[in-house]
Amino acid sequence: MSGRDAENAAQAMSGRDAEAAARAAAGAAAGAASGHDPVASAAADWWATGVSKVEPDVIELRGQPVQELIGRIGLAEMIWLMLRGERPDPRRAALLEAALVSSVDHGPHAPSIAVARMAVTCGVGLNNAVATGVNLLGDVHGGAGEQCVRLLEEVVAGHGPRGDAGGAPGGDASGDPGGDVDAAAVVARWRARDRYLPGFGHRFHTRDPRRDPLLGLVAEAARDGVVAGAHLRAALEVERLIAPVPMNIDGATAVVYAELGFPAPLARGLFVLSRSVGILAHAWEETGQGRRNKGPIPPSILPTWL
Amino acid sequence: MSGRDAENAAQAMSGRDAEAAARAAAGAAAGAASGHDPVASAAADWWATGVSKVEPDVIELRGQPVQELIGRIGLAEMIWLMLRGERPDPRRAALLEAALVSSVDHGPHAPSIAVARMAVTCGVGLNNAVATGVNLLGDVHGGAGEQCVRLLEEVVAGHGPRGDAGGAPGGDASGDPGGDVDAAAVVARWRARDRYLPGFGHRFHTRDPRRDPLLGLVAEAARDGVVAGAHLRAALEVERLIAPVPMNIDGATAVVYAELGFPAPLARGLFVLSRSVGILAHAWEETGQGRRNKGPIPPSILPTWL
Amino acid sequence: MSGRDAENAAQAMSGRDAEAAARAAAGAAAGAASGHDPVASAAADWWATGVSKVEPDVIELRGQPVQELIGRIGLAEMIWLMLRGERPDPRRAALLEAALVSSVDHGPHAPSIAVARMAVTCGVGLNNAVATGVNLLGDVHGGAGEQCVRLLEEVVAGHGPRGDAGGAPGGDASGDPGGDVDAAAVVARWRARDRYLPGFGHRFHTRDPRRDPLLGLVAEAARDGVVAGAHLRAALEVERLIAPVPMNIDGATAVVYAELGFPAPLARGLFVLSRSVGILAHAWEETGQGRRNKGPIPPSILPTWL
Amino acid sequence: MSGRDAENAAQAMSGRDAEAAARAAAGAAAGAASGHDPVASAAADWWATGVSKVEPDVIELRGQPVQELIGRIGLAEMIWLMLRGERPDPRRAALLEAALVSSVDHGPHAPSIAVARMAVTCGVGLNNAVATGVNLLGDVHGGAGEQCVRLLEEVVAGHGPRGDAGGAPGGDASGDPGGDVDAAAVVARWRARDRYLPGFGHRFHTRDPRRDPLLGLVAEAARDGVVAGAHLRAALEVERLIAPVPMNIDGATAVVYAELGFPAPLARGLFVLSRSVGILAHAWEETGQGRRNKGPIPPSILPTWL
Repeated sequence: MSGRDAENAAQAMSGRDAEAAARAAAGAAAGAASGHDPVASAAADWWATGVSKVEPDVIELRGQPVQELIGRIGLAEMIWLMLRGERPDPRRAALLEAALVSSVDHGPHAPSIAVARMAVTCGVGLNNAVATGVNLLGDVHGGAGEQCVRLLEEVVAGHGPRGDAGGAPGGDASGDPGGDVDAAAVVARWRARDRYLPGFGHRFHTRDPRRDPLLGLVAEAARDGVVAGAHLRAALEVERLIAPVPMNIDGATAVVYAELGFPAPLARGLFVLSRSVGILAHAWEETGQGRRNKGPIPPSILPTWL
Repeated sequence: MSGRDAENAAQAMSGRDAEAAARAAAGAAAGAASGHDPVASAAADWWATGVSKVEPDVIELRGQPVQELIGRIGLAEMIWLMLRGERPDPRRAALLEAALVSSVDHGPHAPSIAVARMAVTCGVGLNNAVATGVNLLGDVHGGAGEQCVRLLEEVVAGHGPRGDAGGAPGGDASGDPGGDVDAAAVVARWRARDRYLPGFGHRFHTRDPRRDPLLGLVAEAARDGVVAGAHLRAALEVERLIAPVPMNIDGATAVVYAELGFPAPLARGLFVLSRSVGILAHAWEETGQGRRNKGPIPPSILPTWL
Repeated sequence: MSGRDAENAAQAMSGRDAEAAARAAAGAAAGAASGHDPVASAAADWWATGVSKVEPDVIELRGQPVQELIGRIGLAEMIWLMLRGERPDPRRAALLEAALVSSVDHGPHAPSIAVARMAVTCGVGLNNAVATGVNLLGDVHGGAGEQCVRLLEEVVAGHGPRGDAGGAPGGDASGDPGGDVDAAAVVARWRARDRYLPGFGHRFHTRDPRRDPLLGLVAEAARDGVVAGAHLRAALEVERLIAPVPMNIDGATAVVYAELGFPAPLARGLFVLSRSVGILAHAWEETGQGRRNKGPIPPSILPTWL
Repeated sequence: MSGRDAENAAQAMSGRDAEAAARAAAGAAAGAASGHDPVASAAADWWATGVSKVEPDVIELRGQPVQELIGRIGLAEMIWLMLRGERPDPRRAALLEAALVSSVDHGPHAPSIAVARMAVTCGVGLNNAVATGVNLLGDVHGGAGEQCVRLLEEVVAGHGPRGDAGGAPGGDASGDPGGDVDAAAVVARWRARDRYLPGFGHRFHTRDPRRDPLLGLVAEAARDGVVAGAHLRAALEVERLIAPVPMNIDGATAVVYAELGFPAPLARGLFVLSRSVGILAHAWEETGQGRRNKGPIPPSILPTWL
């Protein structure tokens, strides 16, 4: 068994290496703290972060030891903790979770889905295929939620005290005549810049089946004082103004993310986390279909020559 | 308001376009079904999928209308549904959730984290930064979980009926003398191929703080008959054989994924979904730190010239 | 040898499949042309392109059979042909080539280089490592050339007939008093938007060693009537206005690309092709250095905890 | 003009920052050299490279000052210098250039091309679109050249002194009866592992129009003693053995790269550089076609529901 002892010793050395690294780290940290090692400080500061602290045998995520989170926090709550730095109220976490669930997939017509399916037939790893899909969630394919949050924030800001993001929970906007004017001005300003009002209309669905369930959850949460409801009211105002055009999924999720206080760019970040689920599912299914170098159309259809 | 009517009409046209698309789709589908349109069939079949069905005003994910999932299914359960095609038992979903929570981050030393932080300083979108990080979760940085699942499956397969993946829940391996011989043979075979036994040892932690909480949850689930426990026993056998080398996070999550019946490649896919959370959190934090074109080390440290 | 005959027959079948595909394609094309197959037309048109025509046994690039290009056209000329649709004058191709050569690398401080080096240590393919680096050539790390082309085009446009892009070759700007006023107005307008004037100054070099050789080649080409020289004059005017700040590589390459008539976005595209060379070279070198999961700094330096 | 002076001063400060960086760098380098600053040394060594040396006002590529390369070295030669560390013989550089030219594009059926076209319609940058395409050049879509180089090297190695890579230039294999046996054994070994012999056959062309021009150039170079010709002979032997299956572009370029002494993985790296040209050209063309969120097939064709 001496051979096995030798093998174990070899693999254990990584443990001893880790102890050595820990001692070196402690020394370097001490040196940095005392100003003796400006270069170490510069390099350490270059990678300064408040998201996580990782040292030999220590992993703290936003200040919380990871061993106290495993099995005690849900995935949506974990996402909130990592992005916001604090644990969310369970009802607010549930809203986030609903929004994340709603956007996971839109089928192979979505370029983010199609490119990932094509990627796995080219002999790259599953992670590379997912990355390929996520890389396409740009300003046009995934950016509408972020833009819609900005739009809603402008409408809410234009409403004054009753309508701002920190307003009274469950406030009533139905009797607020001034709201219509502010929203109309914002809508006009956005339409002057771009035909497409982010979060509204859809070139595929006449009425997105995800709109009502999501907005229903937000309305319920507003009634219970879990969120203020100002962004929901703002979105409904816009929808009334541009009827018969309905809000779409980008708009509905924007309402959720804005009500929950996420900055606009994180609307895109959260869409990325959500859509990654569908991208992975499709890439995984494609691996079982046996194609190699799958192009966008069957080989028998030749692209038109311009 | 006629200008506004015109704008609404323009945006509504997308709705009418959608109706037209629906009619065309119905026609094409009918044509395909009746064999009149082989090219349409070929293109439709080229993108055949059982993951989702998306048609104007319809979104079904693994056969379930999305509007019935929003607010009624958690994110971990949704991930399970999309990957496996069926809803999971809640206790099994909770195990999946714990594993996903455990792997979200490992700080800027992890290349997947560092490259995403660098990316956001280069003027690309948040999705591009996340994709950049995910692209690095290859065979060496993320592949160990997948490899460990295969290792554990070999050990379990070598145990005969009591030890296979479909074995009786809560089975007792402590009195199984044959187990040691099978595991030792598998370990020897793997070590002949590669120094590193996937899932064991760690070049940073002497004992990964995530190991015990995760394995504790699996043991509890095995006791309650939620999972069989065979892969957990297999991993503990290997750990005994190569002591003092402990199991690491790749091994602990591999135990979870294998117990839950996920194929080995999905261990990497699930790690991708998990790590995306930390990648996003770090990229987002970096956007607030004001650097431009951030390299790996401060500009005052010049790379050694070889 | 019957086994080998069988193997050859199997591999040859791909040839027979190709013939079948060709016949099907001809049939589909005929059908599409005659309007009998609108779906085939729609799919074929969806992928319509004038860049290349690829059919069984035929490859035409911008209308030229590939077999007539191999060994008869240089790589820089090929890049020009593919992007512009026509063969370039050899002197103009030489200018393009010089600009492409100039930008291939800027060492590991460049994030595009560093992330590719890190990627190859993570067990992904060399193509994935190059893609990772190219993905970072965004608005801040690679976008300056594109922006500078736009800046120069504004300056040139403000000069009237003598200074526009189609102006007389080799024109003399030294005696053009009006030029100073126009350039100053453009510079003021750009500086009002952003501190950084794209193409000028550098946070690493006091004087970029690539500036003089590139601009010297452009001046020579202008003297010989190969390019008009208007964008060179414009850039030199700007440099005089903001002295002692010198033009940098983004500015010098922008001068080249603008003089050669490339649209601004292709300044970034061409930088991508150029920098891919250095990214590949660095990634390749890293594969021989034996690291696994290489982070941005040695493990002994721990990131500062914020 | 004091405002302008202030602006110039601000932008010039970057120059002064560079001087400060240079002094700090010199100090740190001196410190590292003398062993006073182990952390600086560790960080500097962590990014050690022989590809380029970049310091304030200095850029050396493989030891050659960049200002001496601009306008004096072609792009293909530059690629050789960066990858191999030395300038190539002009005839050998010409062979490399021909191979790079040959592989730039294969139309929208190639997934690397299609995904890049789709990417630009999603609101990401041109660099992100190119990266998306390059990311797909994996083991199946781009890996055949690398595999074929390995195959040819095995055949050549099996031939003994006359057939090895360093063999006499222009050697004659037609009268070498032993060659057939060695090649047959290698072919049998490869076919036992995988149906597809890399570099031979093609599922699209019956005879790839790029094969003859490329091999013709190699044969000419072998006759002139520019390359040994051993890999060309090996490839032709294999082609005779598996007739009527012809060599394809992966095989023809593999012959070139092997004859020029590039290691197998660089066959893929070089294919990446080549194909990037076509990927960029197609992505650029797509930007002018006005689509948004372009999926793989027109919206009127709905994917088959499995």
